[in-house]
Amino acid sequence: MFDLQQYLDARVDWVNEALDQALPQPTEHPVRLHEAMRYSLFIGGKRLRPILCMATAEAVGGTAKAALPIGVALECLHTYSLIHDDLPAMDDDDLRRGQPTLHKVYGEANAILAGDSLLTLAFEVLAQQPHGAPLSLELAQAAGSRGLAGGQYEDLAEEQHAQNRETLMRIHANKTGKLIRAACRMGGISAGANTDQLDALGRYGQSIGLAFQIADDILNVTSTQEVLGKSVGSDAKREKLNYIACIGMESAQAEAHDLVGQAIKQLDALSGDKAPLQALAHYVVERLT
Amino acid sequence: MFDLQQYLDARVDWVNEALDQALPQPTEHPVRLHEAMRYSLFIGGKRLRPILCMATAEAVGGTAKAALPIGVALECLHTYSLIHDDLPAMDDDDLRRGQPTLHKVYGEANAILAGDSLLTLAFEVLAQQPHGAPLSLELAQAAGSRGLAGGQYEDLAEEQHAQNRETLMRIHANKTGKLIRAACRMGGISAGANTDQLDALGRYGQSIGLAFQIADDILNVTSTQEVLGKSVGSDAKREKLNYIACIGMESAQAEAHDLVGQAIKQLDALSGDKAPLQALAHYVVERLT
Repeated sequence: MFDLQQYLDARVDWVNEALDQALPQPTEHPVRLHEAMRYSLFIGGKRLRPILCMATAEAVGGTAKAALPIGVALECLHTYSLIHDDLPAMDDDDLRRGQPTLHKVYGEANAILAGDSLLTLAFEVLAQQPHGAPLSLELAQAAGSRGLAGGQYEDLAEEQHAQNRETLMRIHANKTGKLIRAACRMGGISAGANTDQLDALGRYGQSIGLAFQIADDILNVTSTQEVLGKSVGSDAKREKLNYIACIGMESAQAEAHDLVGQAIKQLDALSGDKAPLQALAHYVVERLT
Repeated sequence: MFDLQQYLDARVDWVNEALDQALPQPTEHPVRLHEAMRYSLFIGGKRLRPILCMATAEAVGGTAKAALPIGVALECLHTYSLIHDDLPAMDDDDLRRGQPTLHKVYGEANAILAGDSLLTLAFEVLAQQPHGAPLSLELAQAAGSRGLAGGQYEDLAEEQHAQNRETLMRIHANKTGKLIRAACRMGGISAGANTDQLDALGRYGQSIGLAFQIADDILNVTSTQEVLGKSVGSDAKREKLNYIACIGMESAQAEAHDLVGQAIKQLDALSGDKAPLQALAHYVVERLT
């Protein structure tokens, strides 16, 4: 029987240790910038993207350890996006994971530069791995103006406050989905997966990425501030696009569970160790029950 | 006789055309973000880094056309750094190249995201070139917290207002020097240069990078706002570190010319077409006379 919690705990430790080694030491010049990069990286986080990356590598016969540095790059990129999203000019959030956001502690200039540095470090780490160029391409396409940065732009843009399902799907796909999809494909690339396997991993990632975002929207309405680490209902208050306002709570919950089923179906095409990916697909929405 | 102006005019056209093709079309979704990326890229600029990259490729027997996409990546990265440096939380500049800075026209959030997107696009472009991984590594190391972003951090940091020569040298090396050095090495990498050739190109780049920055500091004192495209003496007014305050005008001019000589000496080790690199070394300081 696969024990997900034990699996997650062990993998989180691996990721944290690898991050610690990949980041410049906090004593290294310029000290405050390196402290700031570490503050946001080590304030918490489920390490979902690195864990998915390692699990997808194993699902096509590769090793988690070979995929671990790629997980480091993914977490650096994810953390950069949170830092910049929280900035006063963007979402203007004071809390992240129950702690003051980076710009509240280190100032705005340092937060911008720490984000820039983490984004850059992600590509520095990837460039030193086998398959460095295809891995970098995958990450850059997921992160740029046609992916994460574009999704954040559109999420902020005033004209998008209309609760339109098509717009919502596109924003979620760009802002969250593409990076989770890339994490899954990059694990496959590190293990030398073929095109069919990469396609299946990509579809798996796309489905759980969307399920994850719907779950987040549900939690933003139903959870407590203590659990969430940020103000409850803050998305609705800011009139940010969210699934609940768009299709209602019941449909949102049903859709999240449907997506998990679709994700798991993709695993039929793979021949490695699939138990972690099955459990992880359930995990992204199980926080709801 | 080598005609530098004709050479520069032709190369600037190549770079601008390649940038236009590499950037998402301004009609592509999200439109305002893609417009913003293009605004800053096409507002002007000497395209020094791409031109150096092509010239160094030719100096070791490669072709300018093969190095051109690498030049696109360099210019995207350089432009990202200007956009973020100009932000209110950073240098808070209203003018760049005689035009309103990006955040004045498109707003702060869009400026942050356009910078992020250009930084990401630089790596997307490199990943699709031959030698994609070593090229990405070179660029990331020059741009991250140990390079450009770290230099900008230290330039902003209050404790650095002391006019200390060692600090000044380190900031200039990180903020400007390393990217120009990387541009020169990346041209060499694209042409398959060996380690000795890359070292020589790196030293050439390091010397002209520093000369270029000293020249900038001199121009900030001596030029007119019309020529400079920003407020004259603005660095001194903000008590930003600069060479003139640190070692005086005469020493600064002498040092800039010395560095040009050191740069040209490095070309002895190369066997390709060196005329452009010789002329470019003089060009970075000739604006002074």
